[in-house]
Amino acid sequence: MSYERDNIRSLHAYTPGEQPTTGDVIKLNTNENPYPPCEAVMAAIRNVQADALRRYPSPNANQFRETAATIFGLAPTQVIATNGGDELLRLVITVFCNAGAEGDTSRRGIGVTEPTYSLYPVLANIHDTPVKSVPLNSDYSIPDDFADQMIAAGVGLVLIVNPHAPSGHVENAERLADIAAQLQGHAVLLIDEAYVDFAENDALSLLDATRGLDNVILLRTMSKGYSLAGLRFGYGLGHAPLIAALDKARDSYNTDALSQAAATAALENRDEASVTWQAVFDERKRVAEALSDRSFAVLPSQTNFILVTPPSNGPSNAGLSDVTLAADLHQFLKARHIFVRYFDHEGLRDKLRITIGSPKQNDALTDAIDAWLNP
Amino acid sequence: MSYERDNIRSLHAYTPGEQPTTGDVIKLNTNENPYPPCEAVMAAIRNVQADALRRYPSPNANQFRETAATIFGLAPTQVIATNGGDELLRLVITVFCNAGAEGDTSRRGIGVTEPTYSLYPVLANIHDTPVKSVPLNSDYSIPDDFADQMIAAGVGLVLIVNPHAPSGHVENAERLADIAAQLQGHAVLLIDEAYVDFAENDALSLLDATRGLDNVILLRTMSKGYSLAGLRFGYGLGHAPLIAALDKARDSYNTDALSQAAATAALENRDEASVTWQAVFDERKRVAEALSDRSFAVLPSQTNFILVTPPSNGPSNAGLSDVTLAADLHQFLKARHIFVRYFDHEGLRDKLRITIGSPKQNDALTDAIDAWLNP
Repeated sequence: MSYERDNIRSLHAYTPGEQPTTGDVIKLNTNENPYPPCEAVMAAIRNVQADALRRYPSPNANQFRETAATIFGLAPTQVIATNGGDELLRLVITVFCNAGAEGDTSRRGIGVTEPTYSLYPVLANIHDTPVKSVPLNSDYSIPDDFADQMIAAGVGLVLIVNPHAPSGHVENAERLADIAAQLQGHAVLLIDEAYVDFAENDALSLLDATRGLDNVILLRTMSKGYSLAGLRFGYGLGHAPLIAALDKARDSYNTDALSQAAATAALENRDEASVTWQAVFDERKRVAEALSDRSFAVLPSQTNFILVTPPSNGPSNAGLSDVTLAADLHQFLKARHIFVRYFDHEGLRDKLRITIGSPKQNDALTDAIDAWLNP
Repeated sequence: MSYERDNIRSLHAYTPGEQPTTGDVIKLNTNENPYPPCEAVMAAIRNVQADALRRYPSPNANQFRETAATIFGLAPTQVIATNGGDELLRLVITVFCNAGAEGDTSRRGIGVTEPTYSLYPVLANIHDTPVKSVPLNSDYSIPDDFADQMIAAGVGLVLIVNPHAPSGHVENAERLADIAAQLQGHAVLLIDEAYVDFAENDALSLLDATRGLDNVILLRTMSKGYSLAGLRFGYGLGHAPLIAALDKARDSYNTDALSQAAATAALENRDEASVTWQAVFDERKRVAEALSDRSFAVLPSQTNFILVTPPSNGPSNAGLSDVTLAADLHQFLKARHIFVRYFDHEGLRDKLRITIGSPKQNDALTDAIDAWLNP
């Protein structure tokens, strides 16, 4: 007999990017920062004493909260620390949406753009809440009637990833603040800024643009910009009553003593992390140009990845569709121990998402692509 | 305007035991192990390289899973690693219960004993699922008709903490396996073995007694027995289809690289941890005798805490009730920087829960109690 709820039984779980088990792989498939975390972070981890592990950690990551509040000009009550950005995404659905049978008037789902970060609808399915999806414009910008459509659908929560995944497009802060203002009184707007550190405009501009609004939560993570995907530490910034509601629903001790110490050190030493961001900007430009030179269509990106379409006049795969061409390149690279991301998803089957690696990794990528183009 | 769901708005969040901010406190209020984690655990943490933090961790804590499976004679698919035992408790409610308005036939709640670990009903409230509560017998054993009552109530999940909190009572494995067998086809039974390492009978006996059943999940944690409350690492053992269902609902990367390494080392070196368990047995006996000698009622305990009732012929608090006596001692100890746990909860207001500390800490406790008894 099955004991789980129907929606869990029928659920297709989120598929994380492939994690190779051997070390000799060039891993450009999960948007990790190619540079290691700074020495201050490693020292903070080493300095955590056995006695601090023996005891329960600060339930709300107090020191981190205060550090983040100071840096961003907020009160500590406007900051929540989470077990990766993933936990914050789960929490907002738990708190601001409502499960329930179809037709229930209290049922409130999430609203997303199409395409978007593929985890959002999975989380909604786990929590049995409906998903309202609105297609982006062809340049991946948000359509003018987006907020109207969300309000008409009665969603409790809107999730926008900005800079956008998987395109790399960035929406300007005023436009997002407008959407937030329209949604006020109707729904919470979470803006997932997982990639914000790789945007060339000021990372704080959206925080400032939405400061007066009561329905906005910004998601940040240590995973990408701070080279700490292995640590699982994210945080949310927002209006204090929203943060207080999330605080009620999180696990009692949701972040641990080691990650609290490391994340605090990372934020205190963000100047060191910003050196890696600059290196990513430079390499992003170089790789984009190299692939454009090879007749790939390359979308402008403000993230640490680029979404590219291989040239249809590529290798002489006569009779193969564009879709198969991207899939073919994905497999070709994988056979050469270079992992990139292919999405078997409407609108994305002709494309590959490639994380910006170190110069050496990126050179290996373009060399392999040359080998594919000229077999 | 409030954006959160009604049940979150009205929720009284779980109150963790007080965490002192200064170091000179004798902390006997949150059941931490008084001895530090072993050196192999600290070495495992130090050995995690910057590059392992840069990358995403194993999504399912693969190495830990395999280590645990080998030790307990299970398949890796029968093990799930979680961000503390707390996450496992939340996951079983997410997966095996159903929210919904009162009267909905699909609404399925949790079943618990009364008293029990106070977090369970809070988690049910967060997920808007009902709670069926059945009083324990006066000796804290489980009543004969417990499973019948749970089946009649139509719960989806039964949560039993064994050894029991906050009494310290242990139910024998055969009795629990009987309850599980009765519940088969009706509900999942999670047995929360957070304190199992401090039980003098074989910690594996329940695992063996329930091995053939399709509806049992055992919760274990590194927090108490392995002195790693600060690490947030727990795990579940159970029938593979139950574990697979939980796996679908957990956050994609729910445990981090540091805690995976530390927890694996802790389990591999459990002989070292077991030295601390023996020390706790010895001190538990000594403290229980010391308090009995002082006319406290002391419940037999198979955990690292004891539930005690101060003697009503204690300090001459003429006109004060028993309830006030326990609360008074709690405050008296706190003023002397000794923290113990007082529950403002039906049936517990005349009692204190005292964690077993180091010999020196326990001596300080009995000295302070002497000062309270003889003002």
